[in-house]
Order: sequence, then C-alpha cells, then structure tokens
Amino acid sequence: MKSSSTQVRGPYRNGTRTRGQILQAARKVFGERGYVGGSVRQIASAVGVSPASLLQHFGSKEGLLMAVLEQWDEGHRERLRAAGSGADGLAHFHALRALMTYHVEHRGFVELFVTLSAEAAHKDHPAHDFVRARYARVVAELSHHITVAVQRGEIAPMPLERRETEARAMIAMFDGLELQWLIDPTFDLVAAYDACIEEIIWRWRTRL
Amino acid sequence: MKSSSTQVRGPYRNGTRTRGQILQAARKVFGERGYVGGSVRQIASAVGVSPASLLQHFGSKEGLLMAVLEQWDEGHRERLRAAGSGADGLAHFHALRALMTYHVEHRGFVELFVTLSAEAAHKDHPAHDFVRARYARVVAELSHHITVAVQRGEIAPMPLERRETEARAMIAMFDGLELQWLIDPTFDLVAAYDACIEEIIWRWRTRL
Repeated sequence: MKSSSTQVRGPYRNGTRTRGQILQAARKVFGERGYVGGSVRQIASAVGVSPASLLQHFGSKEGLLMAVLEQWDEGHRERLRAAGSGADGLAHFHALRALMTYHVEHRGFVELFVTLSAEAAHKDHPAHDFVRARYARVVAELSHHITVAVQRGEIAPMPLERRETEARAMIAMFDGLELQWLIDPTFDLVAAYDACIEEIIWRWRTRL
Repeated sequence: MKSSSTQVRGPYRNGTRTRGQILQAARKVFGERGYVGGSVRQIASAVGVSPASLLQHFGSKEGLLMAVLEQWDEGHRERLRAAGSGADGLAHFHALRALMTYHVEHRGFVELFVTLSAEAAHKDHPAHDFVRARYARVVAELSHHITVAVQRGEIAPMPLERRETEARAMIAMFDGLELQWLIDPTFDLVAAYDACIEEIIWRWRTRL
C-alpha cells in the first residue's frame, strides 16, 4: 500500500515540503551571498538533501533562482493586494505603509530583493529580465495611482510625463531606505518612510 | 645596468602599473559578480598575471577588496570636492549634479558601489564596516549642508531631527535612481535627478 503524503511527513518523502524548504534555503543563501556567490551545494546542505536531489526539483541553479523570484513576486503582489485592496489613488500610497512594516519583519525578503536587483543590473544575469520587467510594472502601477489621485482632485494637477518621474523617485526612495536599514538595522525604516510619504503627498497637494 | 621604469614599460615589470591594472579588473569583476561571486582567478586572468602574483600585491582577496574600496572612496571624495568646492549649504545640492553626470559616464563605479553595498548589508561581509561608516558619513555631510542652508535663510526653518531624515531620503533616492538606471540604461538618470532635486529644494523653501 502506498503511503499518502498526509500520513508520511518525513522531509524527504514529501516532495512539496522539501521543495518549500529548498526555496526557503535558496532565498537565504542568495540573499546573503548573491546568486553568483551562492552555491547549490550550500543550499542543498542547509536542507539536508544532495545537490543532485535539489536539481531534480528545479532542473538547474538558474531554475531554482527563477522559482525563488516567482515565489517572492507572488507573495509581494499578494501583500500589496491585502494592504491596498480597494485603495486607489492617494489611499494607495498610505496603504503602502503596511508593506514597509511587513518588510521590517521579514528582513530576508528585503535582503534577497536588494542583493538580486543590484546583481541583476548586469544584463547577462539570469534575473535581469525579471527585475527589469518588475521595475517597469511597479513604475506603471504607481504612475496610475498618481493619475487617479489627480483625476479625483486629491492632489494638484500634474503633467503626464512628471508622473512617471514621481513614481520612479518614490520607488528609488523606498529601495534606498531599505538598503540603509539593511546596513544599519538601528535606523527606524518605518518612521523614515512615514515622514517621507507625508512630505511627498504634501508636495503633490501644494505644488502647482 | 638596471632598467628604470620609464625605459621598461612591460606590464609585469612595473609594479605600480600592474597594481593599477589589477584594481581596475577587480572593480569590474566585483561590480558584475559581487565580492563573494567574483574570484581572484578571474581577476588575475583578466590582467594576465597568476593568482599568486596578484596575492603578492594585496595579501588576500579581502585585501584586494579593501584596496578597491579605498581607491573608489578616494576618487569619490575628490570628485565631490571638485564638484562642490566652496559650495556650502544649498549650493552643495546643486553641485551634486556634476557627480551624477560623472556617474552616468562611469557605469562601472556605480555598478561596483550598488552591488557591494547590497552584498555588504550582511554583517559578516568584509566590506560591511566600510559601507556602514560611509553611509553614516554621507548622512552627516548632507545634514550639515541642510543646517547651513537653514542658518543662511536659503530654506525655511527645519527641526534638527528632520534634517537627518531629509539627508537619508535624498541619499536613498540617489541610490535607488542609480539602481533603476543600471537596470534600464534608457532611463535618463541626470534628468530625473535634476527634477527630483528641484522638487526637494522647492519643498525645503516652501514648507514650514
């Protein structure tokens, strides 16, 4: 009789569980050492499987990276939806606060994203297209919410081409503040974030 | 008769020249692959020396990293001095523009800094103390120039604790915009930078 996965919970029998553990270990190793510097051997050893067994799950180191990025991106969208569900226009920018609070509680996610984004700036990096597409999407999303805020009169009128620059500057500020917090964890990221968002919104409301 | 270094310019005879070439190759390899991912063998091979000969110059991979960082930091301070010489207070922020223009023309420097800062967020990284001290210094410098601008009445009064947050947010924005430009070189970094600086200074002048 074949055992079902609910009955047998040994870590090497339950494929889903092992897959999750490998992804978790890969997130940590890639976050700390980068994709180029992190090795399949280290990740496999952290989970207690052989490198060959790890590659059975993901095909290659690159396949593992892609799985890590997909999982990360999925979680990120989900949290964004949860934080900003129904929050259009200006309310969206206030809702982003919840995301930053989540980040502070999950340093590993931030470390992974910051390390991989920097490394993937090089166009031969396997995550280059992923990271580039992700930035383009986030810039478009924030630009959209600025447009909604303008249309509703929540902020002052703003030229179309200016909206993308504002979106890019805001994303840049988030990324940069997160980097500063990774480097110096005594820095109060959420407080800095709140103060900056407040100043930006004040400017959007006031500047004609 | 011993040949003088001005007569014999073979790359392996002139120690200073080789040292410079190794540093240049190390900047490129560390910038593209990170410190953990970049290898002494790759760097040595790019210059055409043996790994053993490279280590004679720098003692260890970590020693090489430190030499790269010191050279980078020295160049950065020099450019900052050249750009902002005598430019105190608000003029300092305008002078920073020259620095961003330099960065666009020297992608390798930006790539090195962004990649190493992200990687060095991890506290066991050999560049961690360097990067952390550098951020603390730059935050203190920009805060100082905000204070001078307040004292001269170039901008509106600003609470003391607010100045550090403004300095941090500005540095974050620079870092984040540079990352976006590394990822998508069609993005006009200098134009975005100019627009953002203008908005920030307008806010500093206007907001009470």
